[in-house]
Amino acid sequence: MNILVTLNSNYILPLKVMLWSLFFNNQYQNFNIYLMHSSISSEEIDDLQQFIAENGHELFEVKINEKYFENAPVLMHYTKEMYYRLLAYKFLPASLDRILYLDPDILVINPIDELYNTDIDDYLYAAAYHDIPVKEINRIRLRAYDMEAYFNSGVLLMNLHLQRERINEEEIYTFVEKNKNRLIMPDQDILNALYCKEIKKLSEIKYNYDVRYYYYNKILSNGEVGMDYIMCNTSILHFCGKKKPWQKNYSGKFYSLYKHYEILALQRRLKA
Amino acid sequence: MNILVTLNSNYILPLKVMLWSLFFNNQYQNFNIYLMHSSISSEEIDDLQQFIAENGHELFEVKINEKYFENAPVLMHYTKEMYYRLLAYKFLPASLDRILYLDPDILVINPIDELYNTDIDDYLYAAAYHDIPVKEINRIRLRAYDMEAYFNSGVLLMNLHLQRERINEEEIYTFVEKNKNRLIMPDQDILNALYCKEIKKLSEIKYNYDVRYYYYNKILSNGEVGMDYIMCNTSILHFCGKKKPWQKNYSGKFYSLYKHYEILALQRRLKA
Repeated sequence: MNILVTLNSNYILPLKVMLWSLFFNNQYQNFNIYLMHSSISSEEIDDLQQFIAENGHELFEVKINEKYFENAPVLMHYTKEMYYRLLAYKFLPASLDRILYLDPDILVINPIDELYNTDIDDYLYAAAYHDIPVKEINRIRLRAYDMEAYFNSGVLLMNLHLQRERINEEEIYTFVEKNKNRLIMPDQDILNALYCKEIKKLSEIKYNYDVRYYYYNKILSNGEVGMDYIMCNTSILHFCGKKKPWQKNYSGKFYSLYKHYEILALQRRLKA
Repeated sequence: MNILVTLNSNYILPLKVMLWSLFFNNQYQNFNIYLMHSSISSEEIDDLQQFIAENGHELFEVKINEKYFENAPVLMHYTKEMYYRLLAYKFLPASLDRILYLDPDILVINPIDELYNTDIDDYLYAAAYHDIPVKEINRIRLRAYDMEAYFNSGVLLMNLHLQRERINEEEIYTFVEKNKNRLIMPDQDILNALYCKEIKKLSEIKYNYDVRYYYYNKILSNGEVGMDYIMCNTSILHFCGKKKPWQKNYSGKFYSLYKHYEILALQRRLKA
């Protein structure tokens, strides 16, 4: 399976936890990890490469020259890394036709082969959306009145083949230029405003479970989607929001599970 | 390592979770699991034997004939199984000189070799005690005015050699007969009233962490003993109290961790 991650040095520890949980809960899979970045040091890359190899998988570095984005518009608090996820298809080997992008603030707790093998022949992406009220707010904010859903871009299955055919880099830059003041989460906003009709909907509970809404999801499902259900059926826990489980004073339903995986990721090597 | 468990059919699922967590977090150890019981069916024993073998370890059944306890006093809500832990030394092979008793409502999350190898040459047992106020209440209740601590008997390292020399079965029965109306947790009460001076104190935080008191322990330690500390240093989480994590509507800091281990225990086999 091809996995895409894009990040800077601050996220290397959570990336290791995410990857270890992915490897551990998908032990009969081989993973090729594509890391798109522009600023991670070669020592850090070597360390990551070793970590991934010791757990039986392979790292492919995709170093982006910032010059590539010389003429791309930028936003106040964001670097040009905001484009990496959307334009990954331009930098990845032409031989790849499918890749799964994963945020580093994720814990994989069950197999993901069904997710990876989702039929997306007619779609650019597959993703989950988190909430109907969220969609309404974003539809108005982004003036995308035909937006059908507001997808979360933290788990994004990509049809690279179709993206190479259909995605227009200039269209993205034009959209950013026009909407500069309205973009909050740039890549996610662009994804939704430009491509939401070409995104296949994934089950949020299975593949992008927002850990902040444990009680909300439990109540909404008349108690069905509780801890038992999640541990059996959810493959991807997503630690969305500002508070992260690797930071001090985090608290939450999945804190103990995350911290245990943190220790396992740092101490245990899985055999190939 | 020799591990002792004593239980009835109701605890087979939690026992599997406990054992799997023990095996998984102590992968370079060989475990001999001694199961003392009187009522578990041979089908259940076979299933358990297979579970333990598939994970690379060995089960030894120690079936107790109830006739053995024909003349032992009984308590209202308790069966004669209350004596098993205290009299295990009589039923285990004479070749064993050390064994670690573990309750089934436990999750092992780090290595236990240091615990197992604790020097107990001059002690009958090693155990942890949970709380000073608890000790005071129990000292008065059990009229054991020289009781120095009230130990929890859920994690109990046993010096079988010394027990064979020093423990007097009749003394236990006499104590039970005398204190019938005052015993709440019979084996733990007996252990404390008769032997508390011959118990080596273990670190509660490391080897018998009562999951109900997460905030209490965190505050008491000025924030030091939080999730980070526990995941690094604690080997044994003990799900004390009436509410158990395998039951519906449990809630607590370590719920997600427990339920994840439950799935792992049921689905994954560790190689020998």
